[in-house]
Amino acid sequence: MSADRGRSPIEFWFSFGSPYAYFGALQIEALAARHGREVLWRPFVLGPAFKQTGMGPLTRQPMRGEYALRDWARLARLHQVPFVLPANFPVEPLPAGRMFYAVDSEDPAAAKRLAVSLVRAFFGQGLDIADAETAAGVGEAQGLDRSRLAAAAGDQRWKDALRARTDEALSKGVFGAPFVLVDGEPFWGADRLAMVEQWLARGGW
Amino acid sequence: MSADRGRSPIEFWFSFGSPYAYFGALQIEALAARHGREVLWRPFVLGPAFKQTGMGPLTRQPMRGEYALRDWARLARLHQVPFVLPANFPVEPLPAGRMFYAVDSEDPAAAKRLAVSLVRAFFGQGLDIADAETAAGVGEAQGLDRSRLAAAAGDQRWKDALRARTDEALSKGVFGAPFVLVDGEPFWGADRLAMVEQWLARGGW
Repeated sequence: MSADRGRSPIEFWFSFGSPYAYFGALQIEALAARHGREVLWRPFVLGPAFKQTGMGPLTRQPMRGEYALRDWARLARLHQVPFVLPANFPVEPLPAGRMFYAVDSEDPAAAKRLAVSLVRAFFGQGLDIADAETAAGVGEAQGLDRSRLAAAAGDQRWKDALRARTDEALSKGVFGAPFVLVDGEPFWGADRLAMVEQWLARGGW
Repeated sequence: MSADRGRSPIEFWFSFGSPYAYFGALQIEALAARHGREVLWRPFVLGPAFKQTGMGPLTRQPMRGEYALRDWARLARLHQVPFVLPANFPVEPLPAGRMFYAVDSEDPAAAKRLAVSLVRAFFGQGLDIADAETAAGVGEAQGLDRSRLAAAAGDQRWKDALRARTDEALSKGVFGAPFVLVDGEPFWGADRLAMVEQWLARGGW
């Protein structure tokens, strides 16, 4: 592995509406830091990928849905974090993604903190972050400007930004969430984070 | 965890046609042995589960197929085992499943060895184990009676046995392969074997 590749940030692709992305979001920064890597957080919209692959929200799928519900509760116990299935699940919280990119354009570190707060609010507390005012309130609690966040959720510029990242995800073969790219190597799913870590430790295999 | 539960065998559900089941099959006995558990090998047919869930063979799915091909090659390098995509993939090798249950009815240990030989022949060498004579030849190489194996592949008794296990899989919520049941707790996928191991070590959580 070249020194340049070793310095490249990890790309963490996720949807604000994905339970597995929630579990991934709580782990990815610490994982990357253990290997001296930065993380580029990349929220995107799952719908277009689902359209291509024929997939859909797990809770609407026979057998797989029941398994997923049990699995999320089990993962929450394992990682000792709260988990609730939001009342409006499944939903793609577009305002959250747009706010993220508005903040990210000025302060990526604040955007990461916002992302973690948003997934915690959604899957830890069941707050409806698909509602712009609610999502803006989550940002305000960490010191961001509530009215600017709410405005970003309706701003064409940030709608376009989220759409562009969604297109980028598709072009990179990202079809689910979370999805990690390490120097272009793709890893799908929260249950592949251990493999991401192995890959980073060994420099691939 | 009661002593009785601690002694219960693990159920290892798999399809002879699943690459992920191949990787799982090469690890499950050693994993179980580390925790003093026996393994019940349970080949079944994936088609009926796919019909219920709307899933299908990965290589026929846009984006997911390309990822799977890359992932299988990567898993093979990680575990230092050969991997080839058989020429007739995707296919459900029914003769293999029927032979397994014929042998299993008399000698479960021999049936496990046969199962490992069959998945190694299929995904390690690309031999067509959906062909009864080829599959019987794999069994002969480990000392089983070739003509009895070939006959089992066409015997209604073992056709029924495979079908009954497939029904049992569905009734237990088994929708993919490999799928491990530990004291009734379900774990789907080769990438969950580490979690199975954690579960066994802790007695659940």
